[in-house]
Amino acid sequence: MSAYLARDVPSIERYIVNHLEYSLARTRHSFDRFGAYQATALSVRDRLIESWNDTQQYFTDTDCKRVYYLSLEFLMGRFLDNALVNLGIRDQYKEALLELGFDLDEVEAEERDPGLGNGGLGRLAACFLDSIATLNYPGWGYGIRYKYGMFEQRIRNGQQMEVPDFWLTRGNPFEIERLDVKYPVFFGGHVSQYTDRQGRLRFKWEAGEVVYAVAYDNPVPGFDTYNCVNLRLWDSRPATEFELASFNTGDYYANLEARQTSESISAVLYPNDNTDAGKELRLKQQFFFVSATLQDAIRRFLKRQRPLTELPSRVSVQLNDTHPTIGIVELMRILLDDYAHGWTEAWNTVTAVFSYTNHTVLPEALEKWPVPLMERVLPRHMQLIFEINYRHLQQYAKLCNNDGEVLERVSIIEEGTPKRVRMAQLAVVGTHTVNGVAEIHTRIVRARLFPDFCRFEPQKFVNITNGVTPRRWLLEANPALSAVLSRWTESDEWILELSALRALEQYADNPDLQREFHEAKLENKRRLAEYIQSQHGVQVDVNALFDVQVKRIHEYKRQLLNILGVIARYNLIKAGRHDLLPRVVIFGGKAAAGYAQAKRIIRLINGVAEVVNNDPEVGNLLKVFFLENYRVSLAELIIPANDISEHISTAGMEASGTSNMKFVMNGGLIVGTMDGANIEIREETGADNMFVFGLLAEQVDEARDQLRNHGWRCQDQRYQDAVAQVAAGRFGGADTYAELVHALEPANDYYLVSRDFTAYMEAQERVDAAYRDQRSWLRKCIVSTSRMGKFSSDRSVHEYAQRIWKLQPMPFTPSSITYSKP
Amino acid sequence: MSAYLARDVPSIERYIVNHLEYSLARTRHSFDRFGAYQATALSVRDRLIESWNDTQQYFTDTDCKRVYYLSLEFLMGRFLDNALVNLGIRDQYKEALLELGFDLDEVEAEERDPGLGNGGLGRLAACFLDSIATLNYPGWGYGIRYKYGMFEQRIRNGQQMEVPDFWLTRGNPFEIERLDVKYPVFFGGHVSQYTDRQGRLRFKWEAGEVVYAVAYDNPVPGFDTYNCVNLRLWDSRPATEFELASFNTGDYYANLEARQTSESISAVLYPNDNTDAGKELRLKQQFFFVSATLQDAIRRFLKRQRPLTELPSRVSVQLNDTHPTIGIVELMRILLDDYAHGWTEAWNTVTAVFSYTNHTVLPEALEKWPVPLMERVLPRHMQLIFEINYRHLQQYAKLCNNDGEVLERVSIIEEGTPKRVRMAQLAVVGTHTVNGVAEIHTRIVRARLFPDFCRFEPQKFVNITNGVTPRRWLLEANPALSAVLSRWTESDEWILELSALRALEQYADNPDLQREFHEAKLENKRRLAEYIQSQHGVQVDVNALFDVQVKRIHEYKRQLLNILGVIARYNLIKAGRHDLLPRVVIFGGKAAAGYAQAKRIIRLINGVAEVVNNDPEVGNLLKVFFLENYRVSLAELIIPANDISEHISTAGMEASGTSNMKFVMNGGLIVGTMDGANIEIREETGADNMFVFGLLAEQVDEARDQLRNHGWRCQDQRYQDAVAQVAAGRFGGADTYAELVHALEPANDYYLVSRDFTAYMEAQERVDAAYRDQRSWLRKCIVSTSRMGKFSSDRSVHEYAQRIWKLQPMPFTPSSITYSKP
Repeated sequence: MSAYLARDVPSIERYIVNHLEYSLARTRHSFDRFGAYQATALSVRDRLIESWNDTQQYFTDTDCKRVYYLSLEFLMGRFLDNALVNLGIRDQYKEALLELGFDLDEVEAEERDPGLGNGGLGRLAACFLDSIATLNYPGWGYGIRYKYGMFEQRIRNGQQMEVPDFWLTRGNPFEIERLDVKYPVFFGGHVSQYTDRQGRLRFKWEAGEVVYAVAYDNPVPGFDTYNCVNLRLWDSRPATEFELASFNTGDYYANLEARQTSESISAVLYPNDNTDAGKELRLKQQFFFVSATLQDAIRRFLKRQRPLTELPSRVSVQLNDTHPTIGIVELMRILLDDYAHGWTEAWNTVTAVFSYTNHTVLPEALEKWPVPLMERVLPRHMQLIFEINYRHLQQYAKLCNNDGEVLERVSIIEEGTPKRVRMAQLAVVGTHTVNGVAEIHTRIVRARLFPDFCRFEPQKFVNITNGVTPRRWLLEANPALSAVLSRWTESDEWILELSALRALEQYADNPDLQREFHEAKLENKRRLAEYIQSQHGVQVDVNALFDVQVKRIHEYKRQLLNILGVIARYNLIKAGRHDLLPRVVIFGGKAAAGYAQAKRIIRLINGVAEVVNNDPEVGNLLKVFFLENYRVSLAELIIPANDISEHISTAGMEASGTSNMKFVMNGGLIVGTMDGANIEIREETGADNMFVFGLLAEQVDEARDQLRNHGWRCQDQRYQDAVAQVAAGRFGGADTYAELVHALEPANDYYLVSRDFTAYMEAQERVDAAYRDQRSWLRKCIVSTSRMGKFSSDRSVHEYAQRIWKLQPMPFTPSSITYSKP
Repeated sequence: MSAYLARDVPSIERYIVNHLEYSLARTRHSFDRFGAYQATALSVRDRLIESWNDTQQYFTDTDCKRVYYLSLEFLMGRFLDNALVNLGIRDQYKEALLELGFDLDEVEAEERDPGLGNGGLGRLAACFLDSIATLNYPGWGYGIRYKYGMFEQRIRNGQQMEVPDFWLTRGNPFEIERLDVKYPVFFGGHVSQYTDRQGRLRFKWEAGEVVYAVAYDNPVPGFDTYNCVNLRLWDSRPATEFELASFNTGDYYANLEARQTSESISAVLYPNDNTDAGKELRLKQQFFFVSATLQDAIRRFLKRQRPLTELPSRVSVQLNDTHPTIGIVELMRILLDDYAHGWTEAWNTVTAVFSYTNHTVLPEALEKWPVPLMERVLPRHMQLIFEINYRHLQQYAKLCNNDGEVLERVSIIEEGTPKRVRMAQLAVVGTHTVNGVAEIHTRIVRARLFPDFCRFEPQKFVNITNGVTPRRWLLEANPALSAVLSRWTESDEWILELSALRALEQYADNPDLQREFHEAKLENKRRLAEYIQSQHGVQVDVNALFDVQVKRIHEYKRQLLNILGVIARYNLIKAGRHDLLPRVVIFGGKAAAGYAQAKRIIRLINGVAEVVNNDPEVGNLLKVFFLENYRVSLAELIIPANDISEHISTAGMEASGTSNMKFVMNGGLIVGTMDGANIEIREETGADNMFVFGLLAEQVDEARDQLRNHGWRCQDQRYQDAVAQVAAGRFGGADTYAELVHALEPANDYYLVSRDFTAYMEAQERVDAAYRDQRSWLRKCIVSTSRMGKFSSDRSVHEYAQRIWKLQPMPFTPSSITYSKP
């Protein structure tokens, strides 16, 4: 661009009005708040495009190495506020909109959360993109532009109902449709052999089906930099050129209708709720976005005339969980079949390009595709997987002296009827680095999930603990606290270097800081209280302790433990303990649509809330809320208001968690088990500043054994009463909860709710006691917040860049800056 | 708008580059021809939006009466060239693009024809919109934004193959997405009764299904006016609010996938090839766009506080064929159920609003919906149809003295198993005016289709002969001839008042005019010859007579007669008649995908072409081409190049035809039967100037009887030889054509091909003889063109406005014009 868009308020006003009149074809007569949002967003998009183009041109000119972050999910959250903050232009926009008669906060609220992810994995990808942009790393995200995002959760009669999330019905003004960037993606068909002119046996995949992947770019601006990176999402479009034949048979219109569903490969976000959904369409989605991405990456690489063997010098591909793992095979296919590389040469290239992040050790969450399905959908890839596995097993046979059990474990193919492809094994074999997402998680990955791989290739396994971006989760979500942080560290440095908050610790006892910290918290609690009032019609006491557990509803995350604790607390109050500390217990999160037990937990929470909130005896001492439709924008409202947050998974089951980091950054304390990133947060903030309880990961197996085989049962009367009340229908129809009660019986209590209950209650008592001493409490919070530097995603991304991607920051600086007038 | 976009070349350049950089996020480095098209189109769209907004605001301010033209099809053709010409800014754009390194013609060719129609009916709607805009009438078109347009026709091995037309894959920069204009459209469910507060029995439709209709506006600029009207196309979007229940049962993801097809109500354009497709989805499409349109119209009407009984004073709704007829019932439902009008009051309102254009008298083309289907999809409407019919039959029983046969014929319900709803009868009963589209057609409508209605309500039936817009079909399609016309009439007046071409007739013998006329024709033939060369690799002689038949392939249009004549001509050449006039016979047109016989005719044409074009003995004397994928933009290339065009339907079967008008306007002569608008064209241009042949409509029944029952067969040796050759496999496998030959046997020759053959050959001999006398030929052409004034769609639209819609022109004139700088 020759000149940048002007940044003064009158210019911004004109840009907005221009978009209103010309892009939206609306007049000042029909200028409503949604129109204001669209026009504002489009005018911000213009600025993003400027820096996007400059940044990408700079990357191209400097021919730098790039990372492509492949993820089936990106939970980006709203774009507008993030862009304005990162571009450093929010105040001007606020003023411009005011002149036009609108409140920026209200305008921002018109934006619908793009629900392109299930939970932590997708939000991690979004935080990483923010850090990649901010740290000036040359990196892009690649994923799918789902038309139907994560479902919307409605609560009716206490139960979760899933409503389709047609988020694009209101459009997405931030995306750039790239009709010129499209690739064919093939499926099905068969493989043929031939001898090439050099006399080599070659294979050719004759596909039976094709769709186009069309690129939609979503600019991701960095904070305080000119760099702007890209999230490229693929949209599936019908293709015809390759499929004439299928349209020449039978009834054209019947064919057309039947094909509309299969053509919508990118339509639906499937659940990744730690269960193998086993959907053919999901396998197609995986290949769809991986194939398009590799074609895009290779086209870009080949612009300079270079052999593909040099691909690793310019391209690093990060697989976010196993979902994009088929890319390993697809790149092999391209090198072997399309470019006639030899096997070893191709394999060396492939393994030097890919790296893999493991996100779970739960056996039921490890992807395995039936061989017959894979053969039908991707016949050439199935051949290659067998070949990869054959060579891999040959190599391991030597290493382990033909130990059959080892070979069975490291095999990519799982025996059985049918045989299945273990995507995690494939990901380990086909990458140069495998990382876990927290210390404890990586330890379990090494020791339990891949012990054999780790024995022979220990250097392949590394840990990079997750992080979260302080831009969205502090600066944007919590302006009140941000102001305090900047004032007391006398700098905004913390936004880019979170460890700068350490400077705060010295003032942890300072009454002024404590007061400001407390007031910021109160302001955030007031905001949340207003929201609760608007949703539930209940006024809550902002001086009560706000106790939050928001995350996917899953048995291993043990919302059930929490709600049983709430029942016990309620019973105490009913028994006359009116001296208890007033508490507001807030739940939120979606249960997978097919996960009946999780949905029963939601029902129970609402059943308890119904009883507790309407019991006049309880008053302000206890309130319980389930906030429906948990999502990024709701998290931004809830998290800053937390006094404590609960991260109470059965030890060893939560890979990392990232919301735990966000809660502490926002000045709250954790009630948690020694699991996931809790452990490292505790290491940083200090044992005094976290309410830890429960079994350790090493104790879990034995505890289960005791419950199952040795008659251990929880003797805690509070527990027995609570379960009995649930069973008796105290919180709704007893039938509803029979399955829950059944799962709590000792022999069935896989998640050890009964085992950890007493410890949990004790931890909560410690919380109450600590909270009563507000000065000490505030000190704990201030110290904790000040020590969260490690948990910035900037630190994580730096680690990835240095240890895995081998990437240099490439900050773009315009040679001169001039502004064009609108 | 406070100031209009500037019209000078440097400003236009900047507008284009601006769109390239900001709307498309492309750089000058990636500025290809498609990008140039997109950016140019977007910059033109900006101008259209200016005049669109001004025009609509003016209509609103003046509170004028409007017409809504409801059509299931709009074959608009390319937008860009049309907009530039109508805005009078094409030269500036040409220069601006040249500065940027692009040729405007090539850039325009990047636009894909929006294939939102099947044939004549859809193109008529498009011509009418151009006239409505140009004549400043306050009118909008309403239709459906099909995602899959009319299929693309490919010819492989001589056969038609249908390829889905995913025209939106490349986007449509001219449309304006109106996310804020959306309406729920309901289906299914049941009807409940209740008694309202006034004690009246009322009905309420409790629908079972809902989709949203979202508006996409396509501005349609008039020529030489500031007015710009609108074509609003509805896109179906999923809706959830009303359907929570259906998502709470069973598997969410299975539900979601199953519903994706039904949610794409607007996805597919169905064939209207004069057969009752009988598709439930098509019925849903009809109701979908009609319901959304009526909601939109009523919302607009109600902005001023007025009772709906006054609707007819502000709204006229034209039903283009029976497809939108359900609107009559829907408006009844709204008035009765939603607004509690009494029956008589409601019915008077409804019939004063609607009018209906009949487009066909072919029995198989008259829409009839099975009652059970209607009851399932639109239960309340089915009830109302029964009630409408009951009252209608009561009234007619009085008129006809209970004549059972009359009542059976006028009934909206056809007896049978199942009973069916006759949409044509419903349309006659529920409208104030019914018009046919050519004199002969209206005569047949009166006498054969609706004789009983016509006996008792003769004033209801009127004729308005179709017309075509001279802007697209002369000014844009034929710049060479347009220049001649303007030069010799010394004015551009003809563009707005086509009868001004009469001034040309006095110079019909003038050698200078004849030379210029001839040179224009040659230039157009050269363009077409280049296209043929590019497509078929055959060089054709531009001095040969170009004989064109392009239109839907249908037995009644008798392409078969034409190709049999070609075979006879070929046989003559083979028999040594090397004195014959060189001819290039050009076919084009799509056969409905399920219409096997029509597809065989295509196959035969290509079989003949293969033989003839490759026979060295034939040389330039005869060439035959089937140009694939006939569409508006191809018509614009072909029509100006015609010497003769064939409109040779079996008399009484073609309602009007409109391409006959286009061909003659472009300086060619017609070979035709006394059918459709041919008759009126002949009245205008003179009997000498048309090559008429064949049976008259009145003779058809008797001729069929002779063939079927009295042993008549064609004795013409040329005919017998031609058919025998086809049967013997001279033009491809004999099997292929067995069904064609079978259909030509006297007893089966419903379309009277054999009966009219000899007369057809004689007509062609007259053509040859006439063409040899070029001065006389050119005189004929000039006279014909000069007398085409009647066939401008401006005349048609004026007639509609005055006789049916009761509409006044509302030209908008800006009070002052200032231009904003880019």
